[in-house]
This record gives sequence, C-alpha cells and structure tokens, in this order.
Amino acid sequence: MTQLPSRVHILEEGPREGFQIEKGPISTARKIELIDALSHTGLTHIQIVSFVDPRRVPGMADAEEVVRGIAPAPGVTYTGLWLNERGFERAIATGVLDIRGTIVVGASDAFLKRNQNRDMAEQIASQRTLVQRYRELGYPVTRGGVMAAFGCNYEGDVAVSRVVSLVGEILAIANENEIKLEYVSLADTMAWATPLSIKRVVGALQDAYPDLPLSLHLHDTRGLGIANAYAGLEMGVARYDAAVAGLGGCPFAGHAGAAGNVCTEDLVFMCEEMGVDTGIDLEALIACAKLAEDIVGHPLPGAVMRGGALSKLRAAAASGRR
Amino acid sequence: MTQLPSRVHILEEGPREGFQIEKGPISTARKIELIDALSHTGLTHIQIVSFVDPRRVPGMADAEEVVRGIAPAPGVTYTGLWLNERGFERAIATGVLDIRGTIVVGASDAFLKRNQNRDMAEQIASQRTLVQRYRELGYPVTRGGVMAAFGCNYEGDVAVSRVVSLVGEILAIANENEIKLEYVSLADTMAWATPLSIKRVVGALQDAYPDLPLSLHLHDTRGLGIANAYAGLEMGVARYDAAVAGLGGCPFAGHAGAAGNVCTEDLVFMCEEMGVDTGIDLEALIACAKLAEDIVGHPLPGAVMRGGALSKLRAAAASGRR
Repeated sequence: MTQLPSRVHILEEGPREGFQIEKGPISTARKIELIDALSHTGLTHIQIVSFVDPRRVPGMADAEEVVRGIAPAPGVTYTGLWLNERGFERAIATGVLDIRGTIVVGASDAFLKRNQNRDMAEQIASQRTLVQRYRELGYPVTRGGVMAAFGCNYEGDVAVSRVVSLVGEILAIANENEIKLEYVSLADTMAWATPLSIKRVVGALQDAYPDLPLSLHLHDTRGLGIANAYAGLEMGVARYDAAVAGLGGCPFAGHAGAAGNVCTEDLVFMCEEMGVDTGIDLEALIACAKLAEDIVGHPLPGAVMRGGALSKLRAAAASGRR
Repeated sequence: MTQLPSRVHILEEGPREGFQIEKGPISTARKIELIDALSHTGLTHIQIVSFVDPRRVPGMADAEEVVRGIAPAPGVTYTGLWLNERGFERAIATGVLDIRGTIVVGASDAFLKRNQNRDMAEQIASQRTLVQRYRELGYPVTRGGVMAAFGCNYEGDVAVSRVVSLVGEILAIANENEIKLEYVSLADTMAWATPLSIKRVVGALQDAYPDLPLSLHLHDTRGLGIANAYAGLEMGVARYDAAVAGLGGCPFAGHAGAAGNVCTEDLVFMCEEMGVDTGIDLEALIACAKLAEDIVGHPLPGAVMRGGALSKLRAAAASGRR
C-alpha cells in the first residue's frame, strides 16, 4: 500500500477566494470575524484578501480595512494576492501581511493569450523582471506556480512534458537569482485534473526534480477535488490550498457552474481519518465553515460541516462498549 | 502506477434512493419519465423502486404503478428492493422486474440490534432461511452484501477481520446451496470510509478470497464518495452503485446531513477521463441529472452537471488548433 505523508500543510484561501466572488455585499466586520475565527483552528497560513481593481472586484474594495481589522494570532501567517505592481504596492503598504514573491507561469498558450495577451516567452520574461524587482525591494521569492497545469478550457489537454519544461523555466529563474524555492504549486485552474493525471504530472516532476516539494491548488468544478487531493497524497504531496466550506464557489442557485477550491474541512477530515496530521482542530474548522455559510447567506458546498466528523460518534460508541 | 480496470459496471440506484427520501409528492409520471430517460444512457442496470410499507415511505406507495409504467429498454435490467416477505411478493407480482436474491449481513452488532433486534448469529441464520426460500421459488441468488462495512455510527470502527469473516459466512451459505455469487457488495452505509480504509478492506478480502469480485456502495455524507470510488478503482474493483445527480440525499436547506450515493455522472466523468470504460453516454446522463433536479424541485449535489463535461471543450480546442 502506498505510504501517505505523515503531515500536510494547508494554505487556507477561503476568505480571499470567497469574498471576491460573492455577489451580495459582505460587511468588513464579518470578513474579519471569519478570518479571526480561522486564526484559532490550527491553520498556520491564511490568504485573506486580494489587491485588485475595486471597480472589477467590488468585494475586495475593503482589502486594506480587512487587513487592518484582523487580530493576528501568533504562529499564523497572513498573506494577500496581487496581480500587478499597484496591487503589490498596496499589499506592502498594509505593513501587516507577509510579503513573498512567486514565479508564476501558465501552462496554456491560449489561456495566456486570452488573459494577458502574452505568449509563453513573454510571460517567462515578465517573471524574470518581477523577481529582480522583489529582490531590489528586499522581499523573498519563495514559491513557483503553474496555472492550468492539468488542462485548459481554451487549449484542451496540457502535455505532461510542457509542465515539466515550465517548472524547469521557473527553477532556472530561481537559480539565476540564487533563490531556493520552498515549493512549486500546480494549479488545476479550470478543473481538468483527474486522480490519474495528478499522478502522471506529479510523478513526472518528481522524476525530473527529485528535491522539489510540490503543492496542489485544486478546483472542484467537476467534483473530483478531494479525489485529486487523495491522488496527491499517494504521490507524497504534502501541501494543499483549500477553502473553508468550499468558499469561492457555490454550484447552486445563482452560482451555476462556479466552483471554488477543495473544501478545507473535508480535506482535513480525510487526512486526519487516514492518519495524516494536519495540525488543525476539525471541530473548530467546522464551526468556521458554518460561520462562513452564515456570512454569505447561502449554502456552500462543504460536506463534513453537514455530515459531521466521526470523533464524537467514535467516542460515544467506545463508551457504550465499556 | 496502479493499473485501473479497463471497464466498470455501474448500478444506477437514483430512482429508488431518490424518490423514497424526497419530501414533496412526485407524480408517478415524472418518476417514469426519469427512469425512461436513464434507460437510454447506456446504463444496463437500474434499481427503480423499493417495496416497503407505504405508511412509512409514502414516496414508494406507487411502486407497482411505476414498474408498470416504464418502457423497458433492450439490454437494461430493472430491479427493485425489498426488505421482507411482503415486499418480495410484491416485487415478484410485477412480472417485470428481474428477481434475484442477495445474502445480506451487517458488519455492526449495534446496528443490527437497533435496526432489526437481531444479533449477528440470528441475522446469518435468517439469511440461510431466505436463501432456501429463493431456491424453492426458483429465483437465483447472485450476490452478497455487507452493510456498514467501513464503520458504524453506533458501534464505531469495524475491524477489517470482521468484514473478512462475514464475507466468509456469506460464501459459506452460498457454498452450502451450490451457489456461485457474481459478487459481494461492500456498503459504506454511514459514510465512515476513507480511500485508505477502502484499500485496506478490499485488499484483505482480495487476499482471503482472490476469485471473488467486489462491488462498492458509497454514501457521500462526508464528501469522500468519489475519492473512495477512486481508491476502489486502484484496487481493481469494477462494480459501483451510484445515483444520478446524487439523488437520495441533498446536503442543503431542508435536507441537513442527509446524503445519497456517489453521483453517477461524476463517477462516469472520472472513469471516462481516466480511460476506464463505463459504456455510458456522459452527455445523455448529464441531461438525466438535470431532469432529476427539475423533478425534485431543488438543487442536487452533482458537480459535473453544473461544471460540464470536457469533451466539447476538448473538441473546440482541437479544432481551434487546426
């Protein structure tokens, strides 16, 4: 039987993934309420806001207020997302967030063309420039990322060899700058991955770059998120992005087709039940998932928050047998 | 990398699992509409009704009318579920359903005591009597089943050795009657399974009974249904029960905590994307899932019916590259 990792690290992205997509206005206070609750679950890294154009993403217009309002807990790293120089400057200006650079490439030419009007070479060149900028400002660059690593709505399947080659480009930029990346994240941006393709891509990268830790960012649009995470665990992947309650997407009325990251508490449940330590208090996290649902005001996709964890049932059964 | 089965068989239980649990009255005509639509998707076995006390399960009071109303399609087997002699007689009286016996045991003492007021020995004895009755009436006994094979809300974890022993009891009853079972089904009745426990239990049974095909009946209460099915595939299990759209449970408003079987079209999507043939037309099945949602009048848990299959995107991408 495959050996699963003894411990995994989960990056909680629910506040950022969720509040940027929700239609209804959500008060700054309630966003802060959720982040503060998440800060006491054992999570060690929470991505709480994105610094994007408030005209395009009104749900993130209060990003600075959110950052200022939280009560940072010891041992928890808070980060934000930015997509351009302006966003980067806003993130720095908060003075609270952990600022780290990422070298990001997309695996699909068609996706890059449509979204950034760049080809692959131009995108890689832009990352080279960006890394210089991070270094000049004294911020560390700690991770790489490959978007659409498992397939793309515009381009179709992505060859495993292309992902291997792109990770090579990321590592080359890192090496040129004497940076040792902590890990490279593979994003199933458009939910094309299956457990089998996770194994193929991860396996090929492990063969090519044996010392490079990998992370998985899995969207659940086609219901395979947790199965894909399991495939990652079987391959020894020990880092996952996830969103409490499945925030960031709701496949139900008014949110047709959208889907967020794999649900944090469902992932934690699976890991802990299989003996993979997450460091997270599942019951506290379930309480956060219920709070998230209350805040957004509609059902969210998480399952364990409804089905319940097993620890209480197990304890009751054990005491009944005594 | 693990070798997955080249082909799997899916038993569609949506009509039976779904219509027995829905609160709102659903017309007989609409039940028939769904079953007839499912009959033209490539599914070869559909469990369409249960013959239970209409005072306890009003949604199945029209079971005979449903059976009489469908337009049986060539190559499709239609079955019903019964839990006692009266139900068995009703199923026979339809003259349409495929009547086959199952030797069923529960893996949990506590569950048996609560639900049937029997201990394990009494339950096994009752199955021995039932098999005699099937044989007297000339009906084949083709499968075995273990309920709560992965854990129980009342008893907690179930030892792998107990499942191995219970399957041994099932096979003993079969052997005494010179019956060769087609397969034994393992039911995760209360959603305690993880991919790891699926592998442990299936592996132990394969070691003990190398020639015995297994089937999995997976509830999705805690979100691990598809991941558990993937673990089954990795172990070579080639039979699964599933419910179109995830009928039989809805974790959303008004249905708190309930959850049905793993969703058929999500399972078909995963299998086909991994090269595991299901014989099912995914687009036709997605249309059935949308029909099921229209019939029940509320959102159902299926993901692929919202996220969409990949075949059209893949074809469009390929034609764009030409």
